[in-house]
Amino acid sequence: MKTMKRKGLLLLLMALAAMPMVGQKQFTLEDLNFGGTNYRKMLPKSRLLTWWGDQLIRMGGDTCWTVNPTNGKEKVLFTRDKLNKRAGLLADSVAITRFESFPYADKPFVKAWSGKECMLVNFKTGKVEWHQPVDMDAQAAEWHKTSHATAFVKDDNLFVTDGSGNTRQVTHDGSRDLVYGQSVHRNEFGIEGGLFWNPQGTRLAFYRMDQSMVTDYPLITVPELNDSAQVIATPAPEKYPMAGQTSHLVTVGVLDVATGDTVYLQAGDPTDRYFSNISWNPSGDVVYMMEGNRDQNVVDLVAYDAVTGSRMRTLYHEAHPKYVEPQHPITFLPWDKEKFILWSEKDGYNHLYLYDTAGRLVKQLTSGNWVVMDMLGFDTEQQAVIISANADNPIQQNLYRVDVSTGKMTRIDEGGRGWHNGNLSASGSYLIDYYQEPDVPRNIAIVDTRKNLQYRYFTAPDPWQGYDVPEYRCGTIKAADDNTDLYYRMVMPVNFDPSKKYPTVVYVYGGPHAHNVDARWHWSSRSWETYMAQRGYLLFILDNRGSENRGRDFEQATFRQLGQVEMQDQMRGVDFLRTLNYVDTARLGVHGWSFGGFMTISLMTNYPDVFKVGVAGGPVIDWKWYEVMYGERYMDTPQTNPEGYAQTSLIHKAKDLKGRLQIIIGLNDPTVVPQHAYSFLKACIAAGTQPDFYVYPGQGHNMMGHQSVHLHERITRYFDDYLK
Amino acid sequence: MKTMKRKGLLLLLMALAAMPMVGQKQFTLEDLNFGGTNYRKMLPKSRLLTWWGDQLIRMGGDTCWTVNPTNGKEKVLFTRDKLNKRAGLLADSVAITRFESFPYADKPFVKAWSGKECMLVNFKTGKVEWHQPVDMDAQAAEWHKTSHATAFVKDDNLFVTDGSGNTRQVTHDGSRDLVYGQSVHRNEFGIEGGLFWNPQGTRLAFYRMDQSMVTDYPLITVPELNDSAQVIATPAPEKYPMAGQTSHLVTVGVLDVATGDTVYLQAGDPTDRYFSNISWNPSGDVVYMMEGNRDQNVVDLVAYDAVTGSRMRTLYHEAHPKYVEPQHPITFLPWDKEKFILWSEKDGYNHLYLYDTAGRLVKQLTSGNWVVMDMLGFDTEQQAVIISANADNPIQQNLYRVDVSTGKMTRIDEGGRGWHNGNLSASGSYLIDYYQEPDVPRNIAIVDTRKNLQYRYFTAPDPWQGYDVPEYRCGTIKAADDNTDLYYRMVMPVNFDPSKKYPTVVYVYGGPHAHNVDARWHWSSRSWETYMAQRGYLLFILDNRGSENRGRDFEQATFRQLGQVEMQDQMRGVDFLRTLNYVDTARLGVHGWSFGGFMTISLMTNYPDVFKVGVAGGPVIDWKWYEVMYGERYMDTPQTNPEGYAQTSLIHKAKDLKGRLQIIIGLNDPTVVPQHAYSFLKACIAAGTQPDFYVYPGQGHNMMGHQSVHLHERITRYFDDYLK
Repeated sequence: MKTMKRKGLLLLLMALAAMPMVGQKQFTLEDLNFGGTNYRKMLPKSRLLTWWGDQLIRMGGDTCWTVNPTNGKEKVLFTRDKLNKRAGLLADSVAITRFESFPYADKPFVKAWSGKECMLVNFKTGKVEWHQPVDMDAQAAEWHKTSHATAFVKDDNLFVTDGSGNTRQVTHDGSRDLVYGQSVHRNEFGIEGGLFWNPQGTRLAFYRMDQSMVTDYPLITVPELNDSAQVIATPAPEKYPMAGQTSHLVTVGVLDVATGDTVYLQAGDPTDRYFSNISWNPSGDVVYMMEGNRDQNVVDLVAYDAVTGSRMRTLYHEAHPKYVEPQHPITFLPWDKEKFILWSEKDGYNHLYLYDTAGRLVKQLTSGNWVVMDMLGFDTEQQAVIISANADNPIQQNLYRVDVSTGKMTRIDEGGRGWHNGNLSASGSYLIDYYQEPDVPRNIAIVDTRKNLQYRYFTAPDPWQGYDVPEYRCGTIKAADDNTDLYYRMVMPVNFDPSKKYPTVVYVYGGPHAHNVDARWHWSSRSWETYMAQRGYLLFILDNRGSENRGRDFEQATFRQLGQVEMQDQMRGVDFLRTLNYVDTARLGVHGWSFGGFMTISLMTNYPDVFKVGVAGGPVIDWKWYEVMYGERYMDTPQTNPEGYAQTSLIHKAKDLKGRLQIIIGLNDPTVVPQHAYSFLKACIAAGTQPDFYVYPGQGHNMMGHQSVHLHERITRYFDDYLK
Repeated sequence: MKTMKRKGLLLLLMALAAMPMVGQKQFTLEDLNFGGTNYRKMLPKSRLLTWWGDQLIRMGGDTCWTVNPTNGKEKVLFTRDKLNKRAGLLADSVAITRFESFPYADKPFVKAWSGKECMLVNFKTGKVEWHQPVDMDAQAAEWHKTSHATAFVKDDNLFVTDGSGNTRQVTHDGSRDLVYGQSVHRNEFGIEGGLFWNPQGTRLAFYRMDQSMVTDYPLITVPELNDSAQVIATPAPEKYPMAGQTSHLVTVGVLDVATGDTVYLQAGDPTDRYFSNISWNPSGDVVYMMEGNRDQNVVDLVAYDAVTGSRMRTLYHEAHPKYVEPQHPITFLPWDKEKFILWSEKDGYNHLYLYDTAGRLVKQLTSGNWVVMDMLGFDTEQQAVIISANADNPIQQNLYRVDVSTGKMTRIDEGGRGWHNGNLSASGSYLIDYYQEPDVPRNIAIVDTRKNLQYRYFTAPDPWQGYDVPEYRCGTIKAADDNTDLYYRMVMPVNFDPSKKYPTVVYVYGGPHAHNVDARWHWSSRSWETYMAQRGYLLFILDNRGSENRGRDFEQATFRQLGQVEMQDQMRGVDFLRTLNYVDTARLGVHGWSFGGFMTISLMTNYPDVFKVGVAGGPVIDWKWYEVMYGERYMDTPQTNPEGYAQTSLIHKAKDLKGRLQIIIGLNDPTVVPQHAYSFLKACIAAGTQPDFYVYPGQGHNMMGHQSVHLHERITRYFDDYLK
C-alpha cells in the first residue's frame, strides 16, 4: 500500500493547518458548491492565455497584452475601448463586447463579437476586415477561418452563409424526426457536433439523423413559476432508443458551398450502424469516417470521395470480442499529406499509430502500459507531435514531445508532477502549461518545446487561506483480483483526532470514461467532501476497475455485468477502511450520481448490513432502460445478455433495501430518464421497503446553478439525519 | 365545551380497556389499513340484505334466504347450486356465479350473472326468463328493468341493446375529444354517469361532451415491472381544464330506442354552462335538467320535450351571491304525476321542497337548522317520504318518516343515536337500518316504518376484542368566530397517562363536501389513528368551517379564500390542545390528504413555529392549477379573484417552511395533478427551503390496495423520525 504524499514537510504543514485555530473561517455550501454565490472567489485564480501564431497573448475582458514567454513581461496590445473607437464601432449595438481569438499567425486580426455580429478587426489599423450577423436562434454554428463561411442549424435544417454573407438554406425537411447538422449517437464515440468543414472551408460534411422510428420518452415541462402565459404543464418528449430497441438511421452529406450541391456518402444501409469520427484529408476532397456495427465490436476506417460520395476504400479494421470504441478522428501530419495518426487501444492502451492513405501501418508512435490522453498538435518544422499522457504515473497527466521519426518521447511540462493541460502555439515551438499538483492550486508555465525549457508565468495563491481546510490523502489498495492497484483519496475530518471514530461516507462513480482520483489540487477532491469533512465526516473515494485511464482490460473487466466487479473493488475499499481505527464502520454511508447512483443502490442492496445510509442521484436501475449506444457497448442487448441484465438490475434488489436510501433525480433528465427511479420505487413499494425520494423539476441529469447548492444541502442533511 | 361521551360507564369501560393488560394483542398496519392483508377480518361483520318487493331477503354467495322482519328467522329461498341445476346452467361458462337483485315485487325472478351473461331466473320454476351477453369492454352500462334494454359505452361511442338482444351503435364519432354517455363536469354537481333511462326504458337521455378544446395535462404511465411487451414509459394525457381556462362543451341527447332517432335538447350555446341532475317525468316524455352558469351562482331547472328536444319551460330559478350547487335531480311523487320534490339550500340548509310541473311551489317539506342527507324513497300508500338527516344532532345521521300532507316528521331508526343508513322496501312499509354508534361496531335493525317499530336483526361483535384499543373522545370547541360549535375527535395514546406529555398529530381535511367527526363507531376514527395511538401519539381531528352537513353559511364561510378561515378554526383546535397538560405542543405534527394536504402545507408555512412535522398527501398548492368546476365554485377564477388566489397560494409560502414536511403524491393523480407538488418543490428550491417528497408511480389521487399500507408505514415513519 503506497501513499502518494510526496513531502513529509507538506504533510506536517497540512496537519498543522487542520488543527483548530482561533479565527479560522468555516466553509459554507455557497463557498464550495459550483452554483454557490461565493464559489468563484474560492477557486484558484487563473489567466486567460492564447496564441497569435507563436506570440503569447493574455486576454482580458477589456485589454489584450503580448507576453514575453521567457520572463512573463506583458505589454498592452490594444484595449477594447480604443479599438472600438478606431474601428468606428461607437454605438452600443455594434461595439465589440468580447474577444475570441487571434486566428491568423500572419495577420494582426482579432476575432471579436458585438452583441449581434461576428467580426475580424485589424488591431493595428482598426479596420473591420470582415463581419457577419450571427443568427441567435441557431442550434449549432461552425465558422471557417479560411473561407469565412458559417454553417449553422436552425429549426433542425442546415444553412450556410458563405464568406460574402450570402445565406443558403441547404435542407428543407428538417424536423424533430429528421435532424440535420447536429450531434448523433447521443454524443458517444467522441461526437460533439454535426458540422465538419474541410481544411479549405469549401466543403462541409454534416450529419443527417432520421429518428422518426425512435420511441419518445415522455418527459414533461412544469412551467416556470413566474410564467403567466403558460399555466399547465406541457409534454417535452425526448427521442430515446433504449437498449435492444429500434435505433435511428444516420447518414452523412457533403455540401459543396460554391455550387450548393449535396452528395451523401455511399455507406450503404445505415440500420444498426454507427458513423463517427468524421475528418478530411488535407486537400479537402476525401472524407474519412469510422464505421462501427451495432454490437460495437468491429470498426472500419473508410475513405469517401467528397465530390461523388462514392466509397473509396477501407483503410483500417479493428475488432475485439468485447468492444472497440473509436473516440478520435484521424489527424494528418502537417508535413506529409499521405500520412495520418490514428488512435487505438488494440495493444491494451490508448496509443498513437502512423498510417498512410493506402491503409498501411507505418509505425506505432507511442507504446507502454499507459495511455495517451490528448494530442495537442505538432511541431511541424521539427516533425514532432505534442501529447498529454499518464506515462509517468497513472493518476498524473503530463505533457510530452514525441519525435515522429525516432519515436523518442520527452516530458516537457514544468515539474513533471500533477495534472497538466497544454495549449500549443501555431508552429508548435511553444506551449502554455496549465497545471495543478496536490498542493498546487494552479500554476501556469510557458514551455519552449524544442529546448525543453519551462518559464513560470503565473502562480495562483491558495484561495482557501484562512479556512479550516481538511487533510487530503491519497494511496493505493489492491483490487479484488489481488493484483491491480486502485487509487483512493481520503479526506480527513477537520480537527482529525485518530483516537476518535468518525462516520464515513464513500463517494463513488465507478463507471467507464471517468475517474475521481488524480494528482490535481487536493487529489481532485470534490468540494462537497471538504464541506463534509468540516462537519466531522471522513470521506473515501476509490477508482475501481472499469474506470478510465488505466487501459483497455482494466476498463473492460466490467463487460456484460456492469457494477459487479466495481462492487467487489469498492468492498476492498471497505476492507481497507475496516483496518483504520478512526473509521466507524458501523456508520458507513455511500453517495454517488448517475453511474455512481447505480453503484450506490447496488452497494446498499447487495451489502445491506455494511452501508447504513445512501444518497443516489440520477441512478440507472436497470440497463434495459438506458440508451443503446452506451448501454449496449458495455452490456450488449437484453436479448443477447439476459443473465447480465438480470444480475445487474436493481429491480430484483429492491426487496433487500435495509438502510436509509434517498434517490434524487432531475424531473427532466434526458440521460437517465425518470423511469429508472420510478420503477425502483414501484419495486420497493411492492416489496415493502422504504427508500426516500426527491425530484428537481426542470432539471436534467445534473442540478445546475444555485440548485446544486440546494441539492448538496439536501444530501448533507440526509447523512446528518441518519448517519451522524 | 361539550363532550359527546354519552355514558360514564362506557367511558370507564373504555378507560379500563386502554390500561396495559398482559396478552393484549397489538395492531399492525396489515390489520388496520384498508389494503392490509388482515384488514377484512378486523372490520365489524355485516349481513347483505335486500328487498324482493316487501319481502326481506338475505343474500349469501351461494344461498338466498327469506327473512322474517320481526323475528329475524331465515328460510332458504334457493341455493346457487340447485338453481343452476334446475335451470340447466351446468357448464362453468354459463352457470350463475353471482346474484344481484330481485327487481320485480310481483315476479319470483332473481337477477344473476354468469361470467359472460346477465340473466333473469325464475327461482320457483328454474326457468331462465331472459338473458343477454355482457360486453366486458364497455366503459359504462345501464340496464333497464322494464324494457330489458341496456345502454352502454364502448370506445367513447354509445350503443344500445334492446330487450330482444339487438344492438345498435348510436354514435360513430366518439373519441378522446368527443365523449358520449359518460360522466361530465368531472363528477361535480352529483353527476355519476352519463346514461339516463326514462321510467319505461324506451328513451335514453345521454351526455355528449366535446372536450377537444380542453388542454391535456401530460401524465405518464410507467410500465408494470412484469410487462415484457412494453419497455418505455408512455404518455397518458388527461383532459384537464384548469381554473379560468377554456372548458368543455356539454350537450344532452335523447335516443328513442324503437326508432333509433336521437334529438338533442335545445338548450342553446353550451359554452361556460353546466348541465346536471338529469331526470324524467313519470310518463317518460319530458326531460328535466339543472342548468348552471360558469360562475355557479345561478341555476335553472328546465323542462324539455323528449320527442322534439324543444325547450318547454323554466320551472325553478335559484341564485346566490356566492354559489349554488344542485346535487340532486328532482323526484316525482309516486302518487301524483304533477308534483315533484326538489332539493335546495336556499333557506340556509339542505331541505326538500314540493313543486308542481307548472313550476309552482306547493310547500316546503322539511325545515330547520339541520340538513337532509338522503331521500330513501316513499311510502306510496300512506304518502310519506323516508329521509336521512342530522335533525337530532349535527354529527348523527338518523332516519325519518315525513308525512307529505302534514309535514309531520318522525324518527324511525333504532336507538336514535349514531349514524344510520337505510334501505327501503318496495312499498316503503319496511326499512333495513344499518347503523353504528360510537360504541356500536354495527347493528342492523328492520323497521316497520308505519308502526315505527324496530326489530334487531344483527349485532356485530367487537372485531377488536383482545387488542390494545385506545380511547376515542369527541367534543366541541368554538370556531374562530367565537360562536359556531366545531366538533373534534381525540384519540388518546394507548396506556394513556395524563401526567405524561405526548407528541400530538393533527389530522385534517377541512374542505367542502366532507367531514371527519361523526357518531359512528369510535367517532369515525380512521384506523391509522389507532395505529399511531398504539405508538404513543395523541391524535386530534377537528371539522372546521367549510366542511359539510352544517348548512350553507358554515360551508360558504370559506368562499374565495379557501384555507384561510379553515386555518383560523384549526388554530382554535391548537389553542384547545394547549390547555391540555398531556399534549406536548412542542411536538405538534399535522397530516392530511388532498384538501387536507393543502391545509397541512398551509398550516406548516403560516404557523412555522407551531407545527414541527407535517405530511401532506396530494396537496393543492395553488388553486389556479385545480380544475374549473370545483375550483371556480369556491374560488371564482384567477382573473376575477386574483387577491384570493394570491393569498391562498402556497407558492408564496414556500420560503416560510421551517419544520419537516413530506409531500406525497400519486404520479398518475388526475385530480390534483403532479404540477402542484412539482411547482411547490421548485419554489422551495428557489427559496432555499427543504421539503421532503415521495411519489407512488401508477397511483392516482389516493393509494389503492396494499400500496396504502406502504404509504401509512411511510407516514408513520416520518413522524417517528422527526416528532417522536
